[in-house]
Amino acid sequence: MTEAAVRRRGRGAGGGGAARRAERSAVSFETAKYIERNIPNFEVLNEEALAIIEANAETILEEVGVNFVDNPAALQRWRDAGADVQGERVRLPKGLARELIKTAPSEYTQHARNPDRNVVVGGRNLVLAPVYGPPFVRDAAGGRRYATMDDFKKFVKLGYMSKWLHHSGGTVCEPTDVPVNKRHLDMLLAHMQLSDKPFMGSVTEPSRAQDSVDMCGILFGKEFVQENTVMTSLININSPMTFDDVMMGALEVYAANNQACIISPFIVGGAMAPVSVAGTLTQVLAEVLAGVAYSQLCKAGAPVIFGAFVSSIDMNSGAPTFGTPEASLVTYGAGQLARRLGLPFRSAGSFCGSKLPDAQAAYETANSLNMGLLSGVNFMLHSCGWLEGGLVADFEKFVMDADQLGALHQMAKGIDMSEGMQAMDAIHEVGPGGHYLGCAHTQANFKTAFWKSDLFDYKPFETWEDEGARDTRQLATSRVERLLGQYEQPAMDPAVNEALEAYVAEKKASMPDAFI
Amino acid sequence: MTEAAVRRRGRGAGGGGAARRAERSAVSFETAKYIERNIPNFEVLNEEALAIIEANAETILEEVGVNFVDNPAALQRWRDAGADVQGERVRLPKGLARELIKTAPSEYTQHARNPDRNVVVGGRNLVLAPVYGPPFVRDAAGGRRYATMDDFKKFVKLGYMSKWLHHSGGTVCEPTDVPVNKRHLDMLLAHMQLSDKPFMGSVTEPSRAQDSVDMCGILFGKEFVQENTVMTSLININSPMTFDDVMMGALEVYAANNQACIISPFIVGGAMAPVSVAGTLTQVLAEVLAGVAYSQLCKAGAPVIFGAFVSSIDMNSGAPTFGTPEASLVTYGAGQLARRLGLPFRSAGSFCGSKLPDAQAAYETANSLNMGLLSGVNFMLHSCGWLEGGLVADFEKFVMDADQLGALHQMAKGIDMSEGMQAMDAIHEVGPGGHYLGCAHTQANFKTAFWKSDLFDYKPFETWEDEGARDTRQLATSRVERLLGQYEQPAMDPAVNEALEAYVAEKKASMPDAFI
Repeated sequence: MTEAAVRRRGRGAGGGGAARRAERSAVSFETAKYIERNIPNFEVLNEEALAIIEANAETILEEVGVNFVDNPAALQRWRDAGADVQGERVRLPKGLARELIKTAPSEYTQHARNPDRNVVVGGRNLVLAPVYGPPFVRDAAGGRRYATMDDFKKFVKLGYMSKWLHHSGGTVCEPTDVPVNKRHLDMLLAHMQLSDKPFMGSVTEPSRAQDSVDMCGILFGKEFVQENTVMTSLININSPMTFDDVMMGALEVYAANNQACIISPFIVGGAMAPVSVAGTLTQVLAEVLAGVAYSQLCKAGAPVIFGAFVSSIDMNSGAPTFGTPEASLVTYGAGQLARRLGLPFRSAGSFCGSKLPDAQAAYETANSLNMGLLSGVNFMLHSCGWLEGGLVADFEKFVMDADQLGALHQMAKGIDMSEGMQAMDAIHEVGPGGHYLGCAHTQANFKTAFWKSDLFDYKPFETWEDEGARDTRQLATSRVERLLGQYEQPAMDPAVNEALEAYVAEKKASMPDAFI
Repeated sequence: MTEAAVRRRGRGAGGGGAARRAERSAVSFETAKYIERNIPNFEVLNEEALAIIEANAETILEEVGVNFVDNPAALQRWRDAGADVQGERVRLPKGLARELIKTAPSEYTQHARNPDRNVVVGGRNLVLAPVYGPPFVRDAAGGRRYATMDDFKKFVKLGYMSKWLHHSGGTVCEPTDVPVNKRHLDMLLAHMQLSDKPFMGSVTEPSRAQDSVDMCGILFGKEFVQENTVMTSLININSPMTFDDVMMGALEVYAANNQACIISPFIVGGAMAPVSVAGTLTQVLAEVLAGVAYSQLCKAGAPVIFGAFVSSIDMNSGAPTFGTPEASLVTYGAGQLARRLGLPFRSAGSFCGSKLPDAQAAYETANSLNMGLLSGVNFMLHSCGWLEGGLVADFEKFVMDADQLGALHQMAKGIDMSEGMQAMDAIHEVGPGGHYLGCAHTQANFKTAFWKSDLFDYKPFETWEDEGARDTRQLATSRVERLLGQYEQPAMDPAVNEALEAYVAEKKASMPDAFI
């Protein structure tokens, strides 16, 4: 097993922060570098269509505008920037948002406590992070149930051990057994202690965003945090075109501290956006322009991502549907719009509507993952473990999806046209009617030639049957158990560990439990 | 159910063959038109890479050559065309194949007995046909077993009733209970009687190809068959670079009768072709160039398809692997090569290595189906029902895959940029904080806005649980039963029906049974 190839790096203690951070993670499981695409993006819209959508978005911003709710400071910032503010409605003259977002970086580095795990978000890169937000978990043994902190920790461990996952994520599930006003502390502590991959901060209250910044100050050093991005956090827009004070409050904290935010319309097509792809793209662009512009009003240069969470809807049941062609078309188009703005792009994921990690789940997920790679996504939240429209984080599906992410890595490499890979000698050597299994070229290259699942069944039928005729879910159950059994916590400076735990304990003691 | 919307067309009896053919199919289930793409193809290779592969393929044809086995007439044709023939080895001077293939049409119409089911193969079109060749079938109730003629007929019925399937295919499974020298007669008769979609001819002996032509003469009229393409049949190349007499004999019959052939390298990467993508593409191109050139030597203008069956290999078990990134890269590249030759392209399918219609099967299949759409495939054999590396035709997976083919249709439409779909009125009407469910634009468009599976579960969790918490395979079992229960045979002129049955009976009586 690749993940079991424990790598013990014998670095001596160094002087600076980087060396100290390296020392903290002396035991580590193998993680692939984030994807650097060597393939083109799929461009579904032509220049004319893009220009129409961009002009329409400017019209929407000027004529309809957006609401900033319960946020007088935001309204003042907008007034000062030249927007037309009436009540909570902010109308942006054409070109204003586009001018303001020029200060947003086209890419940024998010640092991890293990510098080998740093990720560069933007450009041709793709960073993969796990599912975010489900209140329920499911596995074959325990069925569907409310998520707990124990489940949360298991998912962080699985994410740490997943070779193709570059990021530990954020709320991999909602630990419903911890008070709602305290769970962000436990979640952050788990990401910091149980993994050495980069992670996300809390966004459910501005004070919790500040806690996230403060805990990172302990983990990375205060000064380091002010000068470097150590969190990428999810700021949803209440589509259509509403920016609430909670999300904006968190954004303000993160921007002020140079921390990255995904600014992301949350759209169930036909409900939060028009029922058409072109209309949805127009609204998405208008919303992101307003949101990113606002981030730059808070702090010019603050790193942000153009987000687009898009699903379609089953008009019979009202349920959101996933892995559908309309969601793909929106995402392909949104990727083009993001690139034209020079912003990193977040979309796609292991989306599905199925209640079980079955064939429906896999078809829908594969549709979305493949589309995510080809649409130029730079940060893919929910890249593994999503089930039942995001209500459930599924343990088996987590490892099933995480395995498929390996295929994206290989696909992204494109076609190696080096002389060796042209294989002319091999074709000459083997000739008509021969076979390549034994030829020199095959012997020299077969180990790395083909991507191989660590989970799927490739065995002869008889072997597979003798071993119990297991389906993918059963294989995944074994894999979850095996990974959790092999887990080893990455080392951390004991003083840092103690300080983090003291911070959490003190904060928790300072307020009563709240469960809503 | 869409398929259950039985359409009774009240056409009166007309004079010509078209009217006669229309009359034969007075009862029909709805079938979508073949896909006409309104989206670009995904182009993974740049001009320089394409030129290298093309030059290398010419070098291989000139220096290594191809074998035409046990086929003196073919060798003579090659000699006459200017090739260097030594023994069975045929070496083609650079440019010869490219010159010869110029007479191959860039697209052709394959006629069905119901003219509404005619398909145009080539251009930006995608025609979908079912799985081909498995000796086994599987369903949840009966498990894995040798296929019989009864299974074969069920698959033809399911294909006829599948809205998104344009083609009835050929050997949807091997009816192992019928003697091997007679089964092509029963198979053809089943396609002709039980469906009104286009179909494939036999290729397992030249005489069986001739039987296919003769039976089509009865069904369509002899003259019609000579002037029109009524079959598209599968001619595999024994990669590397070997053209056997059985396959070439069938090709010769079909070409002489203006019937279409897919000329298709059959490649398990690392065994029948180099272990690299670039090397495989080179060999695929060389093989197809030689095969298509030969088809044009047999009859200039005979319709042919650039085929590429590609899988990778698990070097541990030796098993072919499917839905992998390497197969996708080869297929994307092969699509580009085919378009540069101006030939229709066949590749991709519902490929998977899984033993069951589970998540592995669905991930792998979705990877391949999506790639097939974006790689510009014009004819997708195996587009539904493939299981276990092609050893098994699976009833549940047939309807699961056939349902997903609907998503490809919707995706291929691309983004409608009409003023109505720009939805500016809707965005103005709803405004920040509103919702679109009730707005005029949504009401006017929701019925056609989103593609919807006819199989997947979109129900609320509680409903789904109350109804038995069924997974996709269980839903598919029900769907197979329902479709077969609703099946109605399309009408056929009784005289034609009688003549076909007499032909089959006479042929079968003329030879002893053979089982190998």
